[in-house]
Amino acid sequence: MFDIAVIGAGPAGYSAALNARKREKSVVVIGQNTGWLTKAELIENYPGMPAISGQEMLCIMRRQAQDMGAQLRPGVVHQIIAMDESFAMSLGADFIEAKKVILCTGAKQPRLLPGEEKLLGRGVSYCGTCDGMLYRGKHVAVIAQGPEAVHEANFLASLCASVTYFGSKDEALDPRVTVRSEKVESILGDMHVSGLTAGGEDLPFDGVFIFRETMALSSLIPGLEMDGAFIRVDRQMKTSIPGVYAAGDCTGLPLQVAKAVGEGCIAALAAAKELK
Amino acid sequence: MFDIAVIGAGPAGYSAALNARKREKSVVVIGQNTGWLTKAELIENYPGMPAISGQEMLCIMRRQAQDMGAQLRPGVVHQIIAMDESFAMSLGADFIEAKKVILCTGAKQPRLLPGEEKLLGRGVSYCGTCDGMLYRGKHVAVIAQGPEAVHEANFLASLCASVTYFGSKDEALDPRVTVRSEKVESILGDMHVSGLTAGGEDLPFDGVFIFRETMALSSLIPGLEMDGAFIRVDRQMKTSIPGVYAAGDCTGLPLQVAKAVGEGCIAALAAAKELK
Repeated sequence: MFDIAVIGAGPAGYSAALNARKREKSVVVIGQNTGWLTKAELIENYPGMPAISGQEMLCIMRRQAQDMGAQLRPGVVHQIIAMDESFAMSLGADFIEAKKVILCTGAKQPRLLPGEEKLLGRGVSYCGTCDGMLYRGKHVAVIAQGPEAVHEANFLASLCASVTYFGSKDEALDPRVTVRSEKVESILGDMHVSGLTAGGEDLPFDGVFIFRETMALSSLIPGLEMDGAFIRVDRQMKTSIPGVYAAGDCTGLPLQVAKAVGEGCIAALAAAKELK
Repeated sequence: MFDIAVIGAGPAGYSAALNARKREKSVVVIGQNTGWLTKAELIENYPGMPAISGQEMLCIMRRQAQDMGAQLRPGVVHQIIAMDESFAMSLGADFIEAKKVILCTGAKQPRLLPGEEKLLGRGVSYCGTCDGMLYRGKHVAVIAQGPEAVHEANFLASLCASVTYFGSKDEALDPRVTVRSEKVESILGDMHVSGLTAGGEDLPFDGVFIFRETMALSSLIPGLEMDGAFIRVDRQMKTSIPGVYAAGDCTGLPLQVAKAVGEGCIAALAAAKELK
């Protein structure tokens, strides 16, 4: 059980982790950053790091958080479940428990596919490791939009009759996996998944696995109040759910590193205060 | 005329300056930092600058702001006067004009001396260069609480019959200046200054010059709405006065570098947007 779990490994998340450690709280930072910052070639307006690339910046912040005693955990949290005095987070087949949660999930919200929400748990899954056994000997599709897709597809290939991978070719993929480059347009089925539409064609499948870099907030933590596309927070960075804070791009404009680290700091200190 | 004037040379101020320059606005940062950060030996919780002293941090941020084209101007702003479309700021006998103002004045608010507010402009002055001539051949006191006190006392020594300096001995002081170490307790006078009380003793003076590192916000910019000891701001860092923003420690807790740079960034981007 951690004192604080930070969901998202960007500047807001590392700032939250550093400040949690300064208050002697145990903290885990979950995720691997794949957002806009990783593609930024030159950042000039973050005080203290003149003319630096986004990758370098993240690397320095990551090491700093680690050196201060934060635990880093790659992976995608699929769901956050509020319990009596804590929160349980599922990462694939694993669980992490923490007393407080700080959401630093970035601005990018995945767009759900038509049919996805309705068929979640009825043939749509976000976790091969958890649900793969249900599809042993069956035909499944993988929609690859995140860093875990290859690994999970390979795992499914060891169980399923066929795995069709909608995404870019990747040398690390198991040769039993069939790659298709068409864009998936919707998921088909009424009570259960019957297939999907891709490139204008209806294709039959028994199950559809979707791997994204972040989960939609509505499925990650149901009931979270939003302000348009952003998480509603107060000046302490508290969300509408007690014990859950948010910081960084996910709380709104401007999408800037300086704003993100400021909010991460505020959120961690507020969470640490409540832990006392 | 600058697009933006930043009052205060700490992390909030430099962050505001960097972000103003990124939006191609002309910007001046006024002040020299003498706050708590200059005394911080080790800061570990500012993302991107692991284990650094406050002085080093300020030095790097200052150079970064300068390299990005911000103008730096030491000195203490005595008053900010709202004009039709801009603000005029007095620094000693100089004036600086800007379209928008960002207050980054830190958390420390000077405590006014009994009698000070009532006798301001009636024998109490914050500017030797401006008002010294009024005291030619007279006896004046200097209350030294800021970096400009020595320079200003020396100027007064060239004009006045006597200058009594309440503060620490300083080798740079003109030999005509008399140094006294007593703490000044109040300023005396009814319609005009008649003297002051120091170390329990009433001493006669024709004028009293007070030099502090920052001005009280109430005399710096009258009418600014406060939340207790802090400046009231909205999420865009706008104060109650149109065109005036605030960022950093002066807006409230936590007093942290990360929060300050975040707010400086938000304030500058909001000001730049309004300038368009």
